[in-house]
Amino acid sequence: MTDATNRQIRLAAHPVGMVEERDFELAETPMPSPGDGEALLRTLYLSLDPAIRGWMTGEDTYVPGIKVGDVMRAGALAEVVDSRSPDLNTGDLVLGMLTWSDYTVVRPGVDIVRPIPRQEPITAFLSVYGATGLTAYFGVLDVAPPAAGETFVVSGAAGAVGSVAGQIAKIQGCRVVGIAGGPAKCAWVTDELGFDACIDYKNEDVEARLRDTCPDGIDVYFDNVGGEILDAVIGQINERARIALCGAISRYNDVEPAPGPSNIFNLVPKRGRMEGFIVLDYLDRFLEGILQMGQWVEEGRIKYAEEIVDGLEAAPRALRKLFTGENTGKLIVRVAT
Amino acid sequence: MTDATNRQIRLAAHPVGMVEERDFELAETPMPSPGDGEALLRTLYLSLDPAIRGWMTGEDTYVPGIKVGDVMRAGALAEVVDSRSPDLNTGDLVLGMLTWSDYTVVRPGVDIVRPIPRQEPITAFLSVYGATGLTAYFGVLDVAPPAAGETFVVSGAAGAVGSVAGQIAKIQGCRVVGIAGGPAKCAWVTDELGFDACIDYKNEDVEARLRDTCPDGIDVYFDNVGGEILDAVIGQINERARIALCGAISRYNDVEPAPGPSNIFNLVPKRGRMEGFIVLDYLDRFLEGILQMGQWVEEGRIKYAEEIVDGLEAAPRALRKLFTGENTGKLIVRVAT
Repeated sequence: MTDATNRQIRLAAHPVGMVEERDFELAETPMPSPGDGEALLRTLYLSLDPAIRGWMTGEDTYVPGIKVGDVMRAGALAEVVDSRSPDLNTGDLVLGMLTWSDYTVVRPGVDIVRPIPRQEPITAFLSVYGATGLTAYFGVLDVAPPAAGETFVVSGAAGAVGSVAGQIAKIQGCRVVGIAGGPAKCAWVTDELGFDACIDYKNEDVEARLRDTCPDGIDVYFDNVGGEILDAVIGQINERARIALCGAISRYNDVEPAPGPSNIFNLVPKRGRMEGFIVLDYLDRFLEGILQMGQWVEEGRIKYAEEIVDGLEAAPRALRKLFTGENTGKLIVRVAT
Repeated sequence: MTDATNRQIRLAAHPVGMVEERDFELAETPMPSPGDGEALLRTLYLSLDPAIRGWMTGEDTYVPGIKVGDVMRAGALAEVVDSRSPDLNTGDLVLGMLTWSDYTVVRPGVDIVRPIPRQEPITAFLSVYGATGLTAYFGVLDVAPPAAGETFVVSGAAGAVGSVAGQIAKIQGCRVVGIAGGPAKCAWVTDELGFDACIDYKNEDVEARLRDTCPDGIDVYFDNVGGEILDAVIGQINERARIALCGAISRYNDVEPAPGPSNIFNLVPKRGRMEGFIVLDYLDRFLEGILQMGQWVEEGRIKYAEEIVDGLEAAPRALRKLFTGENTGKLIVRVAT
């Protein structure tokens, strides 16, 4: 192992506007070796998530920002190839917050890394049982809980979070309306996932279609995109509406701060609530979420899609897909198998 | 009584932009007489509130909109001059949702009207013990509860709601920073009401002054104005910040919907919560609020200001003051004594 080189993808520049391949650089470095209490991991799969774009600004938020020259970071699945830590054994499959590289040295107890069962398909630990599935789980059930019979709208409905969020709302007995880009995604959302309706924001008038598809108004909105769609939804909320702010894909690449929803003061007469959340806050309830999601997946009540891109070097170009709306379901990079 | 005429102020036109005197018309009508189960009231004081501007659009929200030709509506204090209802006695002082007129006929049990003790100053039932004081009370303690040691910011700090909200937050042990228009209002807010600081949004850079006066960030924001100030605050919130949306004076007279806060997605990394509320939802807790406010006023811990304008005919012009920022404290029209 130790005579091989280790490829790393580093941040070359903080992106201005849309993230571009030139914002990354590929470096070949010597294979790292674990010190006492450390372990060497071989990366198998990287999870690509919109949040990474936020980290690339370099600003510290709920996690430290990525600075120019830093190795890029991602949730990842890896295999322990050499362990000098009592907490990890060679051959263990682990889930952790790792780096965009072939190999990473981690220190259990300091770095976020934990062994997981080698249960196929292991990529589900990055998707439906991973951060995106759990974001949907806690966002729907904890941040913006819907009651049976209520109307639940979710944007990014063909994405890794939105597709699961809508299905969880269906399980709660809601009328579920998705918003996604293009007829193919919309067809998947209604025909495969069982949403009651899906609005194609690229080809349809969202405001008018919300009126058609939500004749009783909107009780809960799970927002993955922000922007004009958020504005349109706020204009049609019912009293005591709940809005879970999960992310704002439409905004992550803006250079200038874009205006927010002009309908926001509709929250006053409607007594609406809007709340941001981060799945990491639910760390102590992850097991609950994984077990419940597992049961729903086994029962066939939750379906999920993964789009797997091959090769570490393909990661920068793949990340762009999250913002251009090219992917369906969870976007994953296969680094090794 | 019955040979007198009754002056009424009616809505002449739904305002476009800033509310103007031409949007109202004064009518002289015959004195009404109460039917069986009704009572005739003589208006003493009208409460002028920003919400009235919203009703004037004619749109039904949490209360029916005022249509062209309708008599204007307001919270008011009145005296029973003739009662054919078992629920009201001649001479009773009552608080109710009445009209901009010298006399009104009400039907107890249908119309919102209740006798109150004749305890001086009776105008306090329209201000500190009235809708504005209770809006502050429930907004602070229920919608956006602050903990001792937290930083609490309130806009419209010299207004009837904001001035009381800040003092309640002081009683909770917060660092309290007000935002108001002009040095005189700011001086009143800090010197008389005891806020820790007050930002003069007409003459100071709100964003920079928030950084100065809230060195530990903002935990709670009580928003009475919306607009750019809301945006500036959202940019400086702490984790788990709470924002109570009480109103948006800066927006009520807009012709075109203005853009909302471009910082709104700061709610996601900060896990912030923003919630609209309406004091009418707390009707069943009004007595609690009035008793607690009464105790604080008696102890000298809550001070309040009233600006009393004379004459029913002065009401249309007075209403404008709420939006031009001319008044301090609670704006009241004296119709009769």
